[in-house]
Amino acid sequence: MSDRPLKLALVGATGAVGRAVLEDLEAREVPVAELRLFASERSKDELVEFRGDELEVEVLSDRSFRGCDAALLAAGEEVSRRWAPRAWAEGCPSVDLSGAFRDDPAVPLVVAEVNPEGLAGASSRGIVASPGAPSVALALALAPLHRAAGLVRLVVTELHPASGAGRAGVRQLEREVTSLLGGEEPDPSDLSHRMGFNLVPQVGAFGAGGRTIEESRREPELRRILQAPGLRVTSTAVRVPVFYGDGLVVNLTTERPLGAERAREVLRAAPAVKVVDAPAERVYPMPMLAVNDDAVLVGRLRDDPSAPHALDLVAVADNLRRGAAGNAVRIAEALARRVSAS
Amino acid sequence: MSDRPLKLALVGATGAVGRAVLEDLEAREVPVAELRLFASERSKDELVEFRGDELEVEVLSDRSFRGCDAALLAAGEEVSRRWAPRAWAEGCPSVDLSGAFRDDPAVPLVVAEVNPEGLAGASSRGIVASPGAPSVALALALAPLHRAAGLVRLVVTELHPASGAGRAGVRQLEREVTSLLGGEEPDPSDLSHRMGFNLVPQVGAFGAGGRTIEESRREPELRRILQAPGLRVTSTAVRVPVFYGDGLVVNLTTERPLGAERAREVLRAAPAVKVVDAPAERVYPMPMLAVNDDAVLVGRLRDDPSAPHALDLVAVADNLRRGAAGNAVRIAEALARRVSAS
Repeated sequence: MSDRPLKLALVGATGAVGRAVLEDLEAREVPVAELRLFASERSKDELVEFRGDELEVEVLSDRSFRGCDAALLAAGEEVSRRWAPRAWAEGCPSVDLSGAFRDDPAVPLVVAEVNPEGLAGASSRGIVASPGAPSVALALALAPLHRAAGLVRLVVTELHPASGAGRAGVRQLEREVTSLLGGEEPDPSDLSHRMGFNLVPQVGAFGAGGRTIEESRREPELRRILQAPGLRVTSTAVRVPVFYGDGLVVNLTTERPLGAERAREVLRAAPAVKVVDAPAERVYPMPMLAVNDDAVLVGRLRDDPSAPHALDLVAVADNLRRGAAGNAVRIAEALARRVSAS
Repeated sequence: MSDRPLKLALVGATGAVGRAVLEDLEAREVPVAELRLFASERSKDELVEFRGDELEVEVLSDRSFRGCDAALLAAGEEVSRRWAPRAWAEGCPSVDLSGAFRDDPAVPLVVAEVNPEGLAGASSRGIVASPGAPSVALALALAPLHRAAGLVRLVVTELHPASGAGRAGVRQLEREVTSLLGGEEPDPSDLSHRMGFNLVPQVGAFGAGGRTIEESRREPELRRILQAPGLRVTSTAVRVPVFYGDGLVVNLTTERPLGAERAREVLRAAPAVKVVDAPAERVYPMPMLAVNDDAVLVGRLRDDPSAPHALDLVAVADNLRRGAAGNAVRIAEALARRVSAS
């Protein structure tokens, strides 16, 4: 952690990810000298509590980023595309959480504990992209296994919570479940199918090949973060009636033999991973255990005899706190360290 | 369907599966001449509605099965082990839903539309095992693909609903969700972790190799039903906060090339399968669509470029109506036809 307290700007401060950024700064006691909060016209003048103070939320202007060490952009792709270059023009690098730059090869895609060396690439355009929450969790859980045995292929089922669709998603699930328990079919949402007591095999818009854009991103994102250019990934994303926590069911094959026992050992020594794996005592990863946890929980590790060098596992991480906010704040800290060191 | 109306015994008539058997008989207008309902002491004298009549529930005795064409056993493994031989001694074959005989090589394991020829094996011990609901759904969805291209390996994530744990499971989920929406942590259950707004990667007891018995059964069950002795299967089962409907996320590889387009065609011509696959119009399988449906819904079919001859798909089926009851009643009908034909 940098010793010099940070000057941060947070754009999208009233959204689900913005709130999680504030919680992460508080929970990990990140030294903060100044925190500027921004949101859209709709939310300006809202007061947001941070470390006992009430901070005012402002609307962005050209001078908003002057003097900041880093900006955290969590207000949607359009806002990020517009404001990241302006922040950089004021000398402030951005950590983008919106997904606007995840496909851009000129923008480093970084998981702080896995490929911090990628931050060097931020010096050209002043932007670092934080990957989607499932990619962050998968990268943290799989990087140690990749180093130990060389990942070849992943078959992933992603179980996405309502909060992956922001505060609107959380409210939708609450509303639907309340109606259904009262014996009424809830009003249909314009945004999505019913989440309440249902499984929706669509997260985000569809792209090519019958896959969602989110599903298609998993392979290129993990290749970049894990520096595994030959890694093959297929993924199916399903929205589940859970508020917080990404559930990831992973079947993996490796180049060299690994085995569940050794995988467990390797993961026990890894940063930001907790091995939660005593099935006989009913101990395994679950969203209710991962909420507000700063680690990815990994368990149900077992050899898969259906293919050579194959393993099955389940990983769960708080999509907002660990997947989104936790990674972005760590990147901001590292960026500030780089600036103060140079 | 047999023309001669059936004489049936239903053991476990007041449980979740028993109720689904009654619904299946009603919905498909199966001709029934006589229906004897049985349950434990606790539920005897309960009245159960069937086709407008109120039927009394009795306790089993040695003469209970005399003159019946088939008995449907849905009251747990112990009851099945005890009563299946007695029914057969009275000349009545059993269709077992409890799982007591699924591992027994001397008892045929049958999905009515897939391997009805297995029923011939019922003549020795008078028992046919109906597979677990996920195996029924997978067999129906995959048999046409196996015939078309030869299945080699399946990687499955099974999303099990609360009703997979019977009426107690349904009540637990209702109770937990009600508490949580009211801001209270629900009383812990002795049976399982919290299901409400959570994902529990355990369905049933654990066996060898870090797998649950249910997960370990998937490979041998599908090998037998699909007559695919070399098929490799790995599976992870997760309990999800949904009341009804098994969700199955499947990655499959085949011996010969198949492709999503051809797979869709083959499935459109298959019995008991509905292709629900227009993702751009947000049309895909979901539990809320599968409830009370007599077919397995299959969609999200897409080529998986991460391995040769690989495909991804999602299948959903009503675990009680289609997976359990629908298959067992069809087997009972076929058994009665065999008896009347011989």
